[in-house]
Amino acid sequence: MNSNFIQTYVSVDCVVFGFDHENRLNILLVQKYLDEMPVERSKRLPGSLILSHEDVDDAAQRVLTELTGIKKMVLKQFKCYADPNRASNEDDIKWMGKEYKHQIERIITVAYLSLCKIDHKINSAKYDTVDWCTIDKVPTLPFDHNKIITESLIEIRKWIETDFSIIFELLPKKFTIRQLYQLYSSLSEKNIDIKNFHKKIATFSYIIPLNEMEKNVSHRAARFYKFDAKVYKKNYNKLIK
Amino acid sequence: MNSNFIQTYVSVDCVVFGFDHENRLNILLVQKYLDEMPVERSKRLPGSLILSHEDVDDAAQRVLTELTGIKKMVLKQFKCYADPNRASNEDDIKWMGKEYKHQIERIITVAYLSLCKIDHKINSAKYDTVDWCTIDKVPTLPFDHNKIITESLIEIRKWIETDFSIIFELLPKKFTIRQLYQLYSSLSEKNIDIKNFHKKIATFSYIIPLNEMEKNVSHRAARFYKFDAKVYKKNYNKLIK
Repeated sequence: MNSNFIQTYVSVDCVVFGFDHENRLNILLVQKYLDEMPVERSKRLPGSLILSHEDVDDAAQRVLTELTGIKKMVLKQFKCYADPNRASNEDDIKWMGKEYKHQIERIITVAYLSLCKIDHKINSAKYDTVDWCTIDKVPTLPFDHNKIITESLIEIRKWIETDFSIIFELLPKKFTIRQLYQLYSSLSEKNIDIKNFHKKIATFSYIIPLNEMEKNVSHRAARFYKFDAKVYKKNYNKLIK
Repeated sequence: MNSNFIQTYVSVDCVVFGFDHENRLNILLVQKYLDEMPVERSKRLPGSLILSHEDVDDAAQRVLTELTGIKKMVLKQFKCYADPNRASNEDDIKWMGKEYKHQIERIITVAYLSLCKIDHKINSAKYDTVDWCTIDKVPTLPFDHNKIITESLIEIRKWIETDFSIIFELLPKKFTIRQLYQLYSSLSEKNIDIKNFHKKIATFSYIIPLNEMEKNVSHRAARFYKFDAKVYKKNYNKLIK
């Protein structure tokens, strides 16, 4: 055996996006207090080593279910991170020793995108804290988690451009067109004219107006809409045929 | 240590696309004759285990350079395949023992797309044969290589839709619009009207007409064009600003 061929541990890390009531993108960060580990460096992306019987997709689904209680979360694999030095920081090595009770020399990770409604109650027994963090306030995280988050933003944009339906995973069931516009704007990084956006949206038969308006708002009350997944599927299939 | 957390070997596998003179998509398959191994099952995707100092991108670039002699090939990571049973076929286990001189229980692979002009002379010392194979004639391959190839077709389509410039990696330096049309059609799986295609292409300032026509052809001689990467980059950057 060429001794240069190495075995490595394999993990998954999940960037879970949410959209808050101030129209900002957020991601979920978890924290677990471990003896002798500095608390300020304990926030990280939710993740896990994969188990012997697991595919990486299954491991990511397990991490997300442990986190949110939801059995089947929307998820998308986007990149394998395998820099030989990605786990060479002393604190990170120490953390792996504590967390996994083992000296881990090398670890590659497969990164996933996921989406969660921000009002979903999160009550995970696995972590000491699970918090939404606005995307522009993400602290310095261990390993290459900051890099993963930066690259996940490019990936979520691509994902929404190729499958617009996933944007509704981030909105409440009833939403206004302004909410949809603000979410789309915060994801797309382009300046989009709101009038053009309204016109475009009006052509989407899967966005259904409801007989219900906003209440107790300081601006003119806007109509609520819902997303019809069945109509979308039908239309979407037509487009690619 | 939770004994369920496992270490695994990690490999890269490369799907290298080429476009032949009969306007068909091809991929590169390699073959190495090993004692006691059936020759008919010896074709496979070019790949390798990663080395201790290597990132997966570096490993893929190494595999491609060993294969083509080209120092820096265009490449794109597209998916990590980690089914626990992906290397459980008896022949595959035997092959890994012969190739890597070691009992390998589990191996995950990171799959890459690459593109190569089909006229490029391939002369690799590492393999006994390296052959282009048209995409509809790919034989049954070891591991999950057939699945990887099927999924790579979806990925190459997406890649070209998001970055049209990579299509020119598959064409000769001088090409006709018909060649470009046939390549685009074979990649996009849509029926594209050739007149509309011509109109669209005429708006792309990075496709430059040359003062040179086809020679010795049975149909009306067509003009040659070239791709101008600089003009493309300038225009492309403008689009995403």
